[in-house]
Amino acid sequence: MARRKKVYEGKAKILYEGPEPGTLIQYFKDDSAPTAAEPKPAAVDGKGVLNNRLSEFFMSGLNAIGVPTHFIRRVNMREQMVRMAEIIPLEVVVRNFAAGELSARLGIPEGMALPRPIVEYYYKDDRLNSPMVAEEHIVAFGWANQQDLDDMVALALRVNDFMSGVMLGVGVRLADFRLEMGRIWEGDFMRLIVADEITPDSCRLWDLRAMTEREGQPAADAVPLADVYTELARRLGVLPSNVTHTTKPTLIN
Amino acid sequence: MARRKKVYEGKAKILYEGPEPGTLIQYFKDDSAPTAAEPKPAAVDGKGVLNNRLSEFFMSGLNAIGVPTHFIRRVNMREQMVRMAEIIPLEVVVRNFAAGELSARLGIPEGMALPRPIVEYYYKDDRLNSPMVAEEHIVAFGWANQQDLDDMVALALRVNDFMSGVMLGVGVRLADFRLEMGRIWEGDFMRLIVADEITPDSCRLWDLRAMTEREGQPAADAVPLADVYTELARRLGVLPSNVTHTTKPTLIN
Ligand SMILES: Nc1ncnc2c1ncn2[C@@H]1O[C@H](COP(=O)(O)OP(=O)(O)O)[C@@H](O)[C@H]1O
Ligand SMILES: Nc1ncnc2c1ncn2[C@@H]1O[C@H](COP(=O)(O)OP(=O)(O)O)[C@@H](O)[C@H]1O
Ligand SMILES: [Mg+2]
Ligand SMILES: [Mg+2]
Repeated sequence: MARRKKVYEGKAKILYEGPEPGTLIQYFKDDSAPTAAEPKPAAVDGKGVLNNRLSEFFMSGLNAIGVPTHFIRRVNMREQMVRMAEIIPLEVVVRNFAAGELSARLGIPEGMALPRPIVEYYYKDDRLNSPMVAEEHIVAFGWANQQDLDDMVALALRVNDFMSGVMLGVGVRLADFRLEMGRIWEGDFMRLIVADEITPDSCRLWDLRAMTEREGQPAADAVPLADVYTELARRLGVLPSNVTHTTKPTLIN
Repeated sequence: MARRKKVYEGKAKILYEGPEPGTLIQYFKDDSAPTAAEPKPAAVDGKGVLNNRLSEFFMSGLNAIGVPTHFIRRVNMREQMVRMAEIIPLEVVVRNFAAGELSARLGIPEGMALPRPIVEYYYKDDRLNSPMVAEEHIVAFGWANQQDLDDMVALALRVNDFMSGVMLGVGVRLADFRLEMGRIWEGDFMRLIVADEITPDSCRLWDLRAMTEREGQPAADAVPLADVYTELARRLGVLPSNVTHTTKPTLIN
């Protein structure tokens, strides 16, 4: 295979030039980006393989209900082909239950149901630790305009409806998640799409089964899904061994 | 227990006066409403118990993401307490894949993915076999106004995003489903809510596992989920034996 051009290497993924114009290959590594809770995360063996499957599963499901994403197709164990987008430098966070930074900032107990889903924006800049920003900052600094923001909220809420459903179906609570979005052009017409990844690294997942299973005790508020990559892939039936034939039928004769 | 007042008896459910003003008790029977495909459906033993659980599962999940439904709480094996609504005499159908009446009317092969979810209305009248109607008829005859219709479409599409996710999570394709909606008043403010039921009787469900499982054969277009009530309850973990303690913890001492 000819050496491909590397476009970008981040902490969790590598981007290569794609086989067609306007496409990229996303390679999923076993490393994770640092967070406030874990400034130096260790690599998790096989994580990239599962995240590649999981992002495929969620994004193809979203494509199927008409929520546009960058996902085109999975190429191999660690790679998928995606549409190249002009990434908006914001992390869009949707929160259904209080946790993490929201709990810390506003003193709301972790695990509390929010009155409605809350959409937040964080300016994507590693050196600044991705600070929270308001629509005012975003429009003033030109990262997105008001129409983009309205479209981003609508897109994020549709993803939330779908992903909350997927997770509930397998006994998992989607406490919150973050998305990156990008612009693509179809002629003169600009569209926003969901980009980057939807994986356990971008979702805060609690185990509803564990939260209610201890007979005779009050249900716990927030139990993180243990062994999250494998357990989620297992519950969704997308562990590599299970799905070989669903994504690529082995044709006999 | 004092005899309750029966408000209505349909084919699949009985409505009783609820314990508080503005509430009703919905009792799930084992009988089903006749359809074009099955004009005289036989009762399915235990179906009402599972449908009561399943409608609880879906509607409480919708409530949790801010999609308003009539569901308040499950009362026992066959009954749930709901908010009394002024039912709009329409069945709102959302279709993701061609099937049934759409395939028959428009000659679109069963199982084909639709270019986007299609929302249809059927006038709810058993003697007329619930004929399809357009927004023109609905507004002209005063069953709903244009604002109601816009709200109904938005509500139906949110339910579709969520339910498609739940089903995909457990290996099921939501080909189409129908909803009834109703009006409730909070002071002078009118709200539309999802009413009636969300169960296998209101959803067309195909088994993604069966559709792709036959190694070496092209994936089938549409395989109905077999033994649908039990199988769906099992996949979602809401068979009565599993969930007793999640909905009502048994407090020791
Ligand atoms: N469809 C896309 N088109 C262009 N860039 C993308 C697309 N999807 C994701 N990206 C970018 O690719 C990079 C993914 O690598 P990652 O390891 O997550 O990087 P980072 O450490 O910057 O988050 C991110 O910078 C992300 O914004
Ligand atoms: N929240 C509600 N408030 C008032 N009526 C309701 C509510 N939910 C459902 N209904 C009505 O209760 C009846 C349910 O019984 P069912 O056996 O399904 O009847 P049908 O044979 O008329 O479809 C339906 O007529 C439905 O419109
Ligand atoms: Mg990243
Ligand atoms: Mg009915």
